[in-house]
Formats: sequence, C-alpha cells, structure tokens
Amino acid sequence: MSQLKGACIIGQSGGPSAVINASAYGAIKTALENPDITQVLGALHGIKGVLNDDLIDMGKEDPKELAYMKYTPSSALGSCRYKLADPDVDDTDYKRILEIFKKYNVRYFFYNGGNDSMDTCNKISKFMLKNGYDCRVMGIPKTIDNDLYGTDHCPGFASAAKYIATSIMEVYRDSTVYDNGQITVVECMGRHAGWLTAAAALANYAGDGADLIYLPELDFDLDAFTEKVKGIYSKQKKCLVVVSEGIHDKDGKFISEYGSANAAKDAFGHTQLGGLASFLANHLKAATGAKVRGIELSLLQRCAAHSASQTDIEESFAAGKAAVDNAVAGITDKMVGFERSYENGKYVCNIKLFNLTDVANTEKKVPLEWINETGDGLNQGFIDYALPLIQGETQLPKVDSLPRFVRLAKVKAEPLA
Amino acid sequence: MSQLKGACIIGQSGGPSAVINASAYGAIKTALENPDITQVLGALHGIKGVLNDDLIDMGKEDPKELAYMKYTPSSALGSCRYKLADPDVDDTDYKRILEIFKKYNVRYFFYNGGNDSMDTCNKISKFMLKNGYDCRVMGIPKTIDNDLYGTDHCPGFASAAKYIATSIMEVYRDSTVYDNGQITVVECMGRHAGWLTAAAALANYAGDGADLIYLPELDFDLDAFTEKVKGIYSKQKKCLVVVSEGIHDKDGKFISEYGSANAAKDAFGHTQLGGLASFLANHLKAATGAKVRGIELSLLQRCAAHSASQTDIEESFAAGKAAVDNAVAGITDKMVGFERSYENGKYVCNIKLFNLTDVANTEKKVPLEWINETGDGLNQGFIDYALPLIQGETQLPKVDSLPRFVRLAKVKAEPLA
Repeated sequence: MSQLKGACIIGQSGGPSAVINASAYGAIKTALENPDITQVLGALHGIKGVLNDDLIDMGKEDPKELAYMKYTPSSALGSCRYKLADPDVDDTDYKRILEIFKKYNVRYFFYNGGNDSMDTCNKISKFMLKNGYDCRVMGIPKTIDNDLYGTDHCPGFASAAKYIATSIMEVYRDSTVYDNGQITVVECMGRHAGWLTAAAALANYAGDGADLIYLPELDFDLDAFTEKVKGIYSKQKKCLVVVSEGIHDKDGKFISEYGSANAAKDAFGHTQLGGLASFLANHLKAATGAKVRGIELSLLQRCAAHSASQTDIEESFAAGKAAVDNAVAGITDKMVGFERSYENGKYVCNIKLFNLTDVANTEKKVPLEWINETGDGLNQGFIDYALPLIQGETQLPKVDSLPRFVRLAKVKAEPLA
Repeated sequence: MSQLKGACIIGQSGGPSAVINASAYGAIKTALENPDITQVLGALHGIKGVLNDDLIDMGKEDPKELAYMKYTPSSALGSCRYKLADPDVDDTDYKRILEIFKKYNVRYFFYNGGNDSMDTCNKISKFMLKNGYDCRVMGIPKTIDNDLYGTDHCPGFASAAKYIATSIMEVYRDSTVYDNGQITVVECMGRHAGWLTAAAALANYAGDGADLIYLPELDFDLDAFTEKVKGIYSKQKKCLVVVSEGIHDKDGKFISEYGSANAAKDAFGHTQLGGLASFLANHLKAATGAKVRGIELSLLQRCAAHSASQTDIEESFAAGKAAVDNAVAGITDKMVGFERSYENGKYVCNIKLFNLTDVANTEKKVPLEWINETGDGLNQGFIDYALPLIQGETQLPKVDSLPRFVRLAKVKAEPLA
C-alpha cells in the first residue's frame, strides 16, 4: 500500500456512551505512536469543530492524563448533532472541510459515532474521493442502540446492556418487597431497535427479571398490554414491565405520543421521545388501582461508566486502534466493525471492515426469532448473543472511591510549519 | 446481666436500601451463632409477618446461601408500611404480637428500618415492658434518607450517596457534550431532609458536579431559581441542577405540587411526591428555550447494590451484629447507632446505643452551616462528613458478570417443642 504522511483528525458525534472515549483513545494513542501521522488533531464537537477550525493538538496532552480517556464516559472531545447537506445540493460545508484538511495537511479522518455519524463520514469520504484529495476516511462505530449495519455488535451497547440488566435486577428486588403490591414500568432507550430493552432479559437469565419486555420491533397494543398486566398483577401482586421508548401501535404512532399531542423533533427529523414510563404508569394506575412506579433510565443508561463491561471497553479501544492501523496500511472508506467467532466454545471478537456506503443510515434491528411467541420477552438466542459482551468488570480508576475521569488540556492546534 | 433464653424475631420495614440486608444478615448470623437464642425467626413483610404469623425459620436456610444477603439490595424478608395504632386507643395489634411472641417464646425482637420502623419498635418495646413480658427489643437503623436522630449517619445512606455522586459525575459528562447547550435537572429522594441531594456535592468535590444543589432544609423560590439558571446557562451554555423531591416554597408547598393539583398520600399521611424533575424541566424549557432533560433517580438510588460503599456494608452488618450482642448482654429498648471518631486523622465508626423513645419519629436534617451562603450548594463541612462513608468498593459476588443475589428458601417456622 502507498505510504501517506500527514495529520489526522479524530471527531466524536451523536449521543455519547460509556465507552466512546475508549474508542477515541484507541485511535489517538495509535495515531500518536505512528510515524506516518505527523499530527493528531481532535475536532471539538465533531464535524462542527472541523467547520469552525476548532481543533486541539492531542500530542500536547499529558499521555498519563490521556490514558484516563479509556474509562471516561461521554465524548471527551464534545459531540454534535449536525447533518451535512447532500453535496449535490449544497457543498458549502464540504468545501470548508476540504479547506481545513488542506490547512493542516489532514490525510486521515476518523469519525466516531452512530448511524448519523457514519452518514457524515460516508459523505466526507465520497467528497474527498470525488475531488481527488488523498485522505483516508474511517468510521469508528459507537452506539448504545446497537443498530449499526453489518457489525455483530456496536461499542457501547454492552456497557449500557450491563447497566440495564443490573439495574433491572436491583429494581426487581426493590419493587417487590411490599405485600400490598406494586406495578413498575421501566423505560429504556431505543427508538427503532429494541436492543437495549432486550438487555432486560439478561436480568431474567440471572434470576431477577421483568415479567414483560416490549421492543419496538413489534407493534404494541395498549389494550392487550393492559389486560396482560392486570392478569399478572392479580396473580402475583407485582408486575415489572420494561419497554422501549420507541414502542408504537400498528399505525406506527409512538405510545409515548398518546400522552402528549405534539412531540418535538430533533435536527435529523427524529421525534423526540420521553415520558413513556410516566404515561404507562398513570395508565396502569387508572386501570388497576395498584401502586405504580414509572422509571425512565434516561441518560443514566448511556453514561454509566462505573458499571461498564470491560469486554466492551477493550473492544472499543481495539476498534479505534484498528481504524488507524488499517488507514495507515492504505484502507479508506470503511467502518471498523466486529465479527464474532467461537474458539472451543469461547467467544472471540474479530475486527472486520464494512463499506461506509452500506453502513450509513441502515438500522439493524433485533432478529424477530429472538423474541418469544407472545411478543413480550426474549428467548435464549438473545441471551447467547448478549451474555459474552457484558463480561468483565471495568478497571475504572477511582480517587476517594469516586471515578477519576479525564481532564484534557485542550491546547488549540496550529498547522505544522 | 440476667441470661434470657428464647427465640428472636427479625423484621424489616419501610423503604428498602442497598444494605438493609447486610444489617439483617449481621443480626441473623450473630443470632444463629448465639446459644441463648434458641430459634431465629424472620418476619415476612415486617410487623405484618408477626401479626399474620408469617414467620420463617432462618436456621433452615443454607448458611452459604444466607451469606449472599450481605450484598443483596432491598428487604430480603419483605417490607411493609404499616403504622401501629396508639396502644392506649387500640391495643388489638399489640395483644396479637404478644400472643405470637408467647407462641414462639420470642425473647428478642429486632426491627430493621427507618423513622416509622423505630416508632413501631418503640411502641412494641414499651408495650412489652408495661405488660411485664420479658423481651429485649432493639432497633437496627436503615434509611438512605439519613435522617434518624442521634446516630452520626444511617446504614444505607452512604451507598445511595455514592450512587448519586457517581451518577451525577457521569450525567455531568453526558449532558455537557453538545455545543448547542443543555439544562439538566436531576431529582433525588429526600422528603424533609436533603442528605441524598447533598451527596451531589461529592461529585463537585471529584471534579464533575452540579451547578446548583437545592435541599428541602431551605425554602425554594421558583422565580429566583429560574433567573439563576438563566444566568448560568447564558454564560456557559449548560447548567446541571440537582434537587430534592421535597423542596418547597416559603409557605411549605412542595414544588412538585405546582404541577399536579392533587398529590396522593401514603399510609402515614406523607404526600406521595414525584414528577418534580419533569415539572422543573418543562418550566425551564419554557423559560429559556434551551434543550432540557429531567432525570428522576427514583428507585435506582436506593437499590444500587452494584455501586454500594463497602464501608456502608460493613457498618450495616456491624449494626445488626451489635443489636444481637447487646440484647443478649441484657440491653433493651435501644436503637443501635454510630458515633464517629478520628484516629490519627482516619475515620473510625463506633457503635453507640440510643433510646428508642428519643429516636422514634424525630428527623435529623442537614446542618444549615454546611449549606453555602447562596443556598444552592454544600461546603467542605458536608464533604468532610460524607466522604469517609462512601469509601471502598462493594465485594458483591457476580455470576456471568451480573449480581448473584440471595435466594431464600423461606421455610415456614414452627414453634419449638
């Protein structure tokens, strides 16, 4: 492969996760150690940092401090939700990006995010190819939603899944102690794909789980659901329900919208969800007269570094490292992903590359064959899939028994002479 | 002291915590090993288990399984919220309790709970004294609310505080990544005492904390608060607020009630709170136009065994053990509590006994001198108090990287021949 010398940019985008920084650190550390990469630049707030020439020099960070990134949740470089225009319609942003790439002699671009970020990554890759600017572009996946095309799983999913399973086990214990009964509704993230909600099934596997689990992969019928909860509650005086924020009726209407007439939309046109647990709790209270608690796991589920899966952390780091190693070796226009294999029955995670074009904006859902026949739980297929991913306790460094997260100096980058 | 031979009953009551079972296990294990205690009975669902003769024989549990109690959250014996009548008005329940005590030759009664449970414990103690039935009664404190009179702190508080501080640190990282700004409101438990909310200050101490912290110890002014948030948000494009569920205006009206006309009341006549984070988030969104997230920590904060403080676990165990040891030694009508000292600057926790009469229904609030001058944060006094309590990582046993909680056989007790 042809050798390409120049600077690299690393940016993070989309909703953060417990391990997105492990990936960024994997890329940054590997890039800093590679002689072909002359300067390692961090884009503050993703692609916006490129557009605004808001770049920091990662080489100016104390390496010991930088190492804390591996265990720090959220996006240490800052994130954004900014959708690049179709370059055939408006190429203003792309020209600006090219201008910045030339200014710093950027020959490597690594973008760390989910579906929308892979779309951004793909568009930039294709623009640079089209315009003959030699720059290797690699996507580094991240999403607790676990819905990226191709890859066996996404960095960040397992840590969120572990947090959810653990919390459900604890909430199960908490919500079933009173003899006068309780119905509990827990809401997990996941707009169109139910991976996170499915993680509640790991709590069932471990012995303390939900009675009912509803994913957005299937239509949700509020009346049938209400009857099912009533039946369970009348038998055992308790019922623990876990729902995805994205559950919807057969007409595609989100159940969360039953309660609020006008839900806001975000920059990508996605409906902003929330309040589902609260809506269902009120609904079930009225329907049953029982004591009902609605719990929304909200941001907690995606930033819970303290209970992250060490497997997830190491794989995330490996994904960032592989992006740099492959780019330096001549690969471009790909997303790093995972392929699983089993050696003597033991789970092994291998790096595999996917075309950015295939990945961008394609969502991977929970296979229907892993959902049980009554549509309110998961079967062993999902457990076999998810269990290996959540193994290992995080090595999160602590001071005074509280997390010690990274504190970047964020020194403004200057182009090399 | 006179020797007293007979059975003991251990019951748990009130809202569960991450470590209430560590206390129960401390009492059960110690009682099982003591020759004066002829039978160790567990009351299912607290005092209701006594009234209903719903007792299990703890000696019939596998000791290895029982040991999992130390790290299992919530009340393994079940809980209740049942207020005993004033015995001068209606002594029906007390007569029934005495009947059960006689049936099983119960000579030791250990009750594990918070304010209301100490009230129950105190009433039973006084009734037995008045009626000349020789039975030693000891309260074993538990409450994440940390509001029990006398004791330096309560078992359960530190683990909840550690969870809150850790979660706030993570949410701080998560909620500040976007360049287009965010206001985040986190709601903690604590009706009249702000101990749990104050724990957010530990996150500030560790470097990633809230901008504003509001306790119910002070009156809350919604307009002044709104202006303060606006000011912070306009400066730094982010604002993280932590509030107690119990914040109220100068007329004593709960802020959570601003949003809902009629809040329900529980069996003790306490107003059932909730929805405050959601109310404040909507309010701030309207006032600022910013993106706002409301997060209610809900049950998660009181059952998070996975991030419990090992100091809290060991102290909770010690409290249960001390209740049994002291009772067997002849003490009665007391609650076990803690007194702190420092040896060469190192925190030491000592057992101290308090009169049940003094403890019952008295609430201990956060000292006003630990609240900052602007009434929206804590000072070093609180950090010095709380930091030693959260030290040490839980030794929670795991299987497949998920918690392994206790599974009691719950063998129905029979009176000894």
